Amino acid sequence: MKAIVFDNGLKLDENYPKPVPQKGEALIRVTLAGICNTDYEITKGYMGYKGVLGHEFVGIVEEVNSDDKSLIGKRVVAEISYGCNNPDCEWCAVKNYRHCPDRHTLGIWRKDGCFAEYMTMPVNVLFEVPENVTDEQAVFVEPLAAACEISEQLHIEPMKKVLVLGDGKLGLTTALTLNALNLDVILVGKHQNKLDIAKTQGVKTCLLSEFKPEKIYDVVVEATGTASGFETSMSLTKPRGVLVLKSTVASGKELNLAPIVIDEITVLGSRCGQFPPALRLLKNHRIDFTPFITKTYSIDDAIEAFEANKSKESLKILIKI
Amino acid sequence: MKAIVFDNGLKLDENYPKPVPQKGEALIRVTLAGICNTDYEITKGYMGYKGVLGHEFVGIVEEVNSDDKSLIGKRVVAEISYGCNNPDCEWCAVKNYRHCPDRHTLGIWRKDGCFAEYMTMPVNVLFEVPENVTDEQAVFVEPLAAACEISEQLHIEPMKKVLVLGDGKLGLTTALTLNALNLDVILVGKHQNKLDIAKTQGVKTCLLSEFKPEKIYDVVVEATGTASGFETSMSLTKPRGVLVLKSTVASGKELNLAPIVIDEITVLGSRCGQFPPALRLLKNHRIDFTPFITKTYSIDDAIEAFEANKSKESLKILIKI
Repeated sequence: MKAIVFDNGLKLDENYPKPVPQKGEALIRVTLAGICNTDYEITKGYMGYKGVLGHEFVGIVEEVNSDDKSLIGKRVVAEISYGCNNPDCEWCAVKNYRHCPDRHTLGIWRKDGCFAEYMTMPVNVLFEVPENVTDEQAVFVEPLAAACEISEQLHIEPMKKVLVLGDGKLGLTTALTLNALNLDVILVGKHQNKLDIAKTQGVKTCLLSEFKPEKIYDVVVEATGTASGFETSMSLTKPRGVLVLKSTVASGKELNLAPIVIDEITVLGSRCGQFPPALRLLKNHRIDFTPFITKTYSIDDAIEAFEANKSKESLKILIKI
Repeated sequence: MKAIVFDNGLKLDENYPKPVPQKGEALIRVTLAGICNTDYEITKGYMGYKGVLGHEFVGIVEEVNSDDKSLIGKRVVAEISYGCNNPDCEWCAVKNYRHCPDRHTLGIWRKDGCFAEYMTMPVNVLFEVPENVTDEQAVFVEPLAAACEISEQLHIEPMKKVLVLGDGKLGLTTALTLNALNLDVILVGKHQNKLDIAKTQGVKTCLLSEFKPEKIYDVVVEATGTASGFETSMSLTKPRGVLVLKSTVASGKELNLAPIVIDEITVLGSRCGQFPPALRLLKNHRIDFTPFITKTYSIDDAIEAFEANKSKESLKILIKI
């Protein structure tokens, strides 16, 4: 089968072996997938991963290797991590597979990804896509769930002031999600055309160049992925406020953490999320991801798609399979 | 009066003007004071402070500039920050003066400190020392309150595993405090003689060289004040756990914050605390600070006392006034 493989280099492999579902797994025919910045990071060495890339997708279940065959023919998405499911694993017990020490993560860690004609995942991390949600919306469920994760970790009271810094995919998705949860959120970024995607859907926005920095925000979400963005976020977080760190990119930089102590700030690391809240938002059409789609490529043009993803002008690049 | 003053250099000034209590302030005759590492940091330029140093003390109220004279003759300690007390200040409204934007902080920010024969502080930040608490114990109330602050910010459930990294004054005080709150705490450090101070009072301890690092601690308190201590703390904090950052020293170093996101760690900045919980611990003799006292100097030997404080062997250096 066709697959986009990273192994010291990125290539389209026309003859990658079709996967065989193991006990408890489903075989899924992928129909649409999305390129995430993590995929790009992997091509630069992140996680030392080698194999089929990709973790954002929609597909159709063709086979199930278990007694319950009810998912066959269903359109599904999958949470990207699955765990050991041992009876004494506290993480698997609460379906928080991404923290299981023995986890596998689709296209990132010990599990071939979704940029291929076929993939497999355990049925316990599959979710049927509601009928009224198109493939082009459903393919965003994974980053949307990551934005919803903030609301799983942190209770943001409705009178609190929330600021999202950064108007890339991550910042836009986070701002739209917190807005969909009826919170008082402002998105600050450098690109009017990107800010407008959120503004059109009811989010307050402000260009960074016109923004008056004040240390008044109860919650600041750092979504720029830069060290300077982290420091700006600290300077905007009110004493005893929360700085939500959403990006793994701000690494190895010289950082002065003293403001965290002086202002008693909480820095909350936030990663992936469970899918049901994200699927509810999609089903109820609370967020429209259509304006995120920069271009859809065929899997045959995957290398070109990865090149397009590098452009600062791009938001989401999709791959039709 | 005699005062230890920092103004581009440290000196004992024999003729520093005796302060005059302003409206709402008390005049306090200082009897005993303690050198904190923050004092040493100030002599290296921290906060750009110039004036009388010192913020840890016990003293006797001699005058009060207000109608209520009941504190005169009482033995007191003082929280180190006081605020604007404007009716619309959310911080002053809850006595959280250290976050008031218009605060003054004893010997650190816009207020002469306690290394002097006399000092003044507003009566609303003074606390009477219980009769059964000696000066030598009461002088530790400020760092003890800073350790208690963790319990104000964070609910640590009794089944959680707590690790304190670093066996300096800060680490020892924190471990003893969390132990006094009946938590399951282990103190890890490099100095057997320092660890023994905590061990004698019931804290589990372990030499770093004999410690088996495992990512199993729900709460890790970073009390080494070093960048490597911060990174070690991250590696010991279990996914979704809390890393309490107690020191402002780990600054400007290259830090990889990715583990915070990957493990969804909460980094909680923690600073000073309110005094009543610390005074309760002292009154009930839950912690004995006697073994912390390395040596007591006369104010006439203050420069020598500051030199002694620099030694890695020293714990608390006191100044008798």
